[in-house]
Amino acid sequence: MKRTSQTTVRVRFGETDQMGITYHGSYVVYFEIGRTEFMRSNGLCYADMEADGLSLAVVEMSAKYLKPARYDEELTIETELAEAKGVHVRFDYRIMGPSASNEKPLLCTGHTVLACVDRNGRPTRIKSPWREKIQEALSE
Amino acid sequence: MKRTSQTTVRVRFGETDQMGITYHGSYVVYFEIGRTEFMRSNGLCYADMEADGLSLAVVEMSAKYLKPARYDEELTIETELAEAKGVHVRFDYRIMGPSASNEKPLLCTGHTVLACVDRNGRPTRIKSPWREKIQEALSE
Amino acid sequence: MKRTSQTTVRVRFGETDQMGITYHGSYVVYFEIGRTEFMRSNGLCYADMEADGLSLAVVEMSAKYLKPARYDEELTIETELAEAKGVHVRFDYRIMGPSASNEKPLLCTGHTVLACVDRNGRPTRIKSPWREKIQEALSE
Amino acid sequence: MKRTSQTTVRVRFGETDQMGITYHGSYVVYFEIGRTEFMRSNGLCYADMEADGLSLAVVEMSAKYLKPARYDEELTIETELAEAKGVHVRFDYRIMGPSASNEKPLLCTGHTVLACVDRNGRPTRIKSPWREKIQEALSE
Repeated sequence: MKRTSQTTVRVRFGETDQMGITYHGSYVVYFEIGRTEFMRSNGLCYADMEADGLSLAVVEMSAKYLKPARYDEELTIETELAEAKGVHVRFDYRIMGPSASNEKPLLCTGHTVLACVDRNGRPTRIKSPWREKIQEALSE
Repeated sequence: MKRTSQTTVRVRFGETDQMGITYHGSYVVYFEIGRTEFMRSNGLCYADMEADGLSLAVVEMSAKYLKPARYDEELTIETELAEAKGVHVRFDYRIMGPSASNEKPLLCTGHTVLACVDRNGRPTRIKSPWREKIQEALSE
Repeated sequence: MKRTSQTTVRVRFGETDQMGITYHGSYVVYFEIGRTEFMRSNGLCYADMEADGLSLAVVEMSAKYLKPARYDEELTIETELAEAKGVHVRFDYRIMGPSASNEKPLLCTGHTVLACVDRNGRPTRIKSPWREKIQEALSE
Repeated sequence: MKRTSQTTVRVRFGETDQMGITYHGSYVVYFEIGRTEFMRSNGLCYADMEADGLSLAVVEMSAKYLKPARYDEELTIETELAEAKGVHVRFDYRIMGPSASNEKPLLCTGHTVLACVDRNGRPTRIKSPWREKIQEALSE
């Protein structure tokens, strides 16, 4: 169990825009990849969770853009489970660019708050075993 | 009833890529807008059709790119219902760029074949009243 | 000149996700459409601005999701120019769903801060006539 | 040198649509990932090629959809360099779904023809060393 996970993503051509850099909306997808891989690495497969009738709906999002990313660069997405309270879960993200040295430049930070909802879209308490796994990750 | 319909779409910033032109994948979405508006203008609201348990799944697609489109340009999408046979419907598309004169430059042509499927994704004959409306449009 | 503008956008099929609602990342694009149309309605064509060597790069973004939007719904995007200071411009957004009555349900609120940059991506003061037009809109 | 390469991609949540399957437009992006990785595995980094003033613009595309892909599935993209003649290069694609056994189900086939263009978007002969590498791959 870990409270933080890392995964990588390579910038696709279609994710660039005519400024010659990665379109700012692409980071929303990178955040999503970050939390999917965070969950998977903590034994919480989101596809399984959905099959179990639970979805996580994004209710809040923010992003700060510090430096641009470019086509074909391999980015590192660092995802931290920041909080879980009631029906809500909060993830924080840090996206870093490639680097020849050890210090990867920070490109973007952000967060999302997700609400657990049932098949009808109604907020619902995160049930077992998902709740326990989230608590376990949080306690690290 | 008309066998051909026209609608317009403005190129969004996020639809461009770092070549400074509209990303080729964006045209897939323009085709979709074309057939949605074709159907609406023929009294066939696709959202209603889905509510009625029928979906149209794309099973075939092609596109030829002749000239690039650019950010913020207003494109004209011409959609023609080309054929309806069994569970399949075929649409042909022509996408034109803006022009000061009457002759709009042809940017892209393409087609899609769609299969009518039920809620379980199984191919199914297009039922009334959708079938009649499609036949009516075809006979123009 | 107006400090607030409204435009509409229809939810595209490709903008939905498997939750059966509009993908949360699609709103980033709606915000962009909102500010493009805000600028156009104030005589500030963004494509012209880019041709003039100035771009507006998103440096900050936030969104709160209140209610889901669905496929083919016509949404109203309300954009307000909230602030312009140094190289930065801030826009606030309110996205509303369709309604039979006069009161459109509020689906999403958000903001973006944009930095004016030159062709090399360096922050640069917003020059004439763009600066004057922005100030004019702000003073309303 | 190889004439065919394989890479994998995991279906992102935002790539699904309300039919509960992968949006058909997402395959256009998978094709692109396929040829990017084909080129990389043959010592032809597309980002380097662009830095060298050459771009490959898609001029033709087709796809046939056989079976749907679903969220979070790992797909295999098989890319074959099919032809290189004058300014054009043709790639063929086969996209396969996951499988417990050895036989992965074929989900989608397609092709793209790309034209080599210079910085002004004018068709241009593929120059050294790119041409030689493409010929080498083709001769396998």
